[in-house]
Amino acid sequence: MKKIRVMIVGYGNVGRGVRLSLGKNPDMELVGIVSRSPERVGKELPDVPVMAISDVEGWKKAFRPDVAILCGGSKNDLPQQGPEFAKYVNTVDSFDNHSRIPEYFADIDAAAKASGHVSVISTGWDPGIFSLERVLGGAFIPGARAYGFYGLGEKGGLSMGHSDALRTIPGVKDARQFTHAIPEAIERVRRGENPAFEPGDMHTRECFVVLEEGADREAVTKTILSMPGYFAPYKTTVNFVSQQELDEKYKGFPHDGLAIAVGETGDRHAARVEYRCIWGSNPEATANVLVAHARAAARLAGENRSGAFTILDIPPAYFTTLSREELLEHWM
Amino acid sequence: MKKIRVMIVGYGNVGRGVRLSLGKNPDMELVGIVSRSPERVGKELPDVPVMAISDVEGWKKAFRPDVAILCGGSKNDLPQQGPEFAKYVNTVDSFDNHSRIPEYFADIDAAAKASGHVSVISTGWDPGIFSLERVLGGAFIPGARAYGFYGLGEKGGLSMGHSDALRTIPGVKDARQFTHAIPEAIERVRRGENPAFEPGDMHTRECFVVLEEGADREAVTKTILSMPGYFAPYKTTVNFVSQQELDEKYKGFPHDGLAIAVGETGDRHAARVEYRCIWGSNPEATANVLVAHARAAARLAGENRSGAFTILDIPPAYFTTLSREELLEHWM
Ligand SMILES: NC(=O)c1ccc[n+]([C@@H]2O[C@H](COP(=O)([O-])OP(=O)(O)OC[C@H]3O[C@@H](n4cnc5c(N)ncnc54)[C@H](OP(=O)(O)O)[C@@H]3O)[C@@H](O)[C@H]2O)c1
Ligand SMILES: NC(=O)c1ccc[n+]([C@@H]2O[C@H](COP(=O)([O-])OP(=O)(O)OC[C@H]3O[C@@H](n4cnc5c(N)ncnc54)[C@H](OP(=O)(O)O)[C@@H]3O)[C@@H](O)[C@H]2O)c1
Repeated sequence: MKKIRVMIVGYGNVGRGVRLSLGKNPDMELVGIVSRSPERVGKELPDVPVMAISDVEGWKKAFRPDVAILCGGSKNDLPQQGPEFAKYVNTVDSFDNHSRIPEYFADIDAAAKASGHVSVISTGWDPGIFSLERVLGGAFIPGARAYGFYGLGEKGGLSMGHSDALRTIPGVKDARQFTHAIPEAIERVRRGENPAFEPGDMHTRECFVVLEEGADREAVTKTILSMPGYFAPYKTTVNFVSQQELDEKYKGFPHDGLAIAVGETGDRHAARVEYRCIWGSNPEATANVLVAHARAAARLAGENRSGAFTILDIPPAYFTTLSREELLEHWM
Repeated sequence: MKKIRVMIVGYGNVGRGVRLSLGKNPDMELVGIVSRSPERVGKELPDVPVMAISDVEGWKKAFRPDVAILCGGSKNDLPQQGPEFAKYVNTVDSFDNHSRIPEYFADIDAAAKASGHVSVISTGWDPGIFSLERVLGGAFIPGARAYGFYGLGEKGGLSMGHSDALRTIPGVKDARQFTHAIPEAIERVRRGENPAFEPGDMHTRECFVVLEEGADREAVTKTILSMPGYFAPYKTTVNFVSQQELDEKYKGFPHDGLAIAVGETGDRHAARVEYRCIWGSNPEATANVLVAHARAAARLAGENRSGAFTILDIPPAYFTTLSREELLEHWM
């Protein structure tokens, strides 16, 4: 069978995860990587073809991708790269700026429809799998609210966005932020209260901060605790650690979460659905989901579909290599 | 908005659940019930139009259903009713005889394609939601096996099929069977062993049996323990109880389950996904899922699709009443 030719756009944590994931999906092959810093990437991966992202005619000809997996950042890269790449090729991305998804969908949809490509946006685990589970929970238990909790394990879950926010503070040399779900909040949901939470009711935030020499602990703490949106609404703890301690004890990208919906069926019988995921590496897990969606994008494109799609618009069978016969026989 | 006109075919536990569920889904209305025992049903529901299942021209004219939800038994009713009703109307059913699903799919597909109808088969929680979660687990974590466990709670989950099997034994007046997951087996899966289980490694079976007067306890016990398929492969316990005790302590249709897949992403990082559901009433939960699929069936029919579908063939957005705009804005 002809393999699906996948190109990676932007090589950071998720890009790395996509490369590794493609190695475990025998129906796909990595045909090349494009980056704004091709030297950096070429040095890391001497055996993989790497080209400059701007050399559109070059990579089109050299890589002939069926699907491009966009691994740029949601804040600055994807809003520009998404609609741009949708002109040239079928795309998949993990755009996770929740409040901007409608706008991003519209931009990509216009570009992809005009060029006749398929663009699957905002997939990964949240948005992505969790979006799907929330929608299923709401559909199968009418009246139930769907909640997302993060960082249920002992260590909590590393939040990249909040870690980045800490690192913008003057005096902070390095930092990582772990999110913790509040167990009592989960219990209230499980009991079927369907509570109206403020963000601070569901999660706490734990910061590990390495200071620059001579920086003022109290000033940094104050800045963190009063940061609107990021930390002000939450019970936040700030711990100062050495760079070595940060690198050894708080390394990696572990994350985990719970999507949950609780309500009643028919004659006042309790009904509860919970989706739980635990990832040793958040970007690798995101990458795995992106790769499965690349398979779906190729299939949708093969049906001459075009425009923007989310995980909610795709029949689940499109994510697997399994045939209808195999699915009916072994997976139903 | 015009409501989706739903007809119930066959009125037992699931049929009752569908009636109650329709009351909670304002985009649908119950237009009538057809049954092989219309008097029985009419007596239970004096305010609902009920007709004989055999009066095809009659119910077609009186009810004009958009979708028929087939609530007959999987063993004897659906193999006949499914392909028959697919001739007349769009259908949804919860056919759960796993090994016969390929055959059932083919029969219904042929009938529905010939008549131009949509037939969604084998949906509910298992097959149904669990099928979906197994496929997603396998697609997002390549190499992970997907497992289904049932009866994780203290009381276990009531198995209708196994209760029916007990009631066929001479000397048994009434009986109910509760399935229990084996916690150690779940722990092995969680640890990432991806074990090859025999059925008896995953579950135990607990029987509560009311004997007929004068029946022989030991003979009944022996018959149960040696029943191939149903009980012989499992660690099974048999408890003899009075009818009163059965009716009071072991009533209702509670069930629960866990679909789980464990593997690794990229660079040897653990990855685990778990879908857990806990139903106070199994037939009501099944009914809720059937009703959401009736919405999807109506929508697929509106797109002039035809033939057999499973949950794996349907974009998840089709299960909800939410518009694309609402989904993008609040549910991603
Ligand atoms: N939906 C979800 O569940 C989910 C989960 C996790 C992440 N995400 C999204 O995924 C996005 C990417 O995450 P990420 O962790 O991969 O971000 P990242 O490591 O910062 O990479 C983002 C981009 O930055 C550039 N870059 C990376 N390392 C660099 C370096 N050393 N020097 C210069 N440039 C470098 C790369 O572009 P060039 O190669 O072009 O330089 C890369 O595409 C996030 O913004 C987030 O929105 C979504
Ligand atoms: N996929 C899943 O997750 C899932 C879960 C649960 C159940 N199921 C399936 O759903 C099917 C139906 O389950 P159920 O619990 O609703 O079965 P049930 O109560 O035995 O009803 C099955 C049929 O029996 C007839 N019936 C019911 N009560 C009767 C009575 N008192 N006297 C005479 N006839 C009666 C009804 O047909 P008439 O009205 O025509 O007489 C009804 O359609 C099961 O076979 C199972 O396969 C699937």
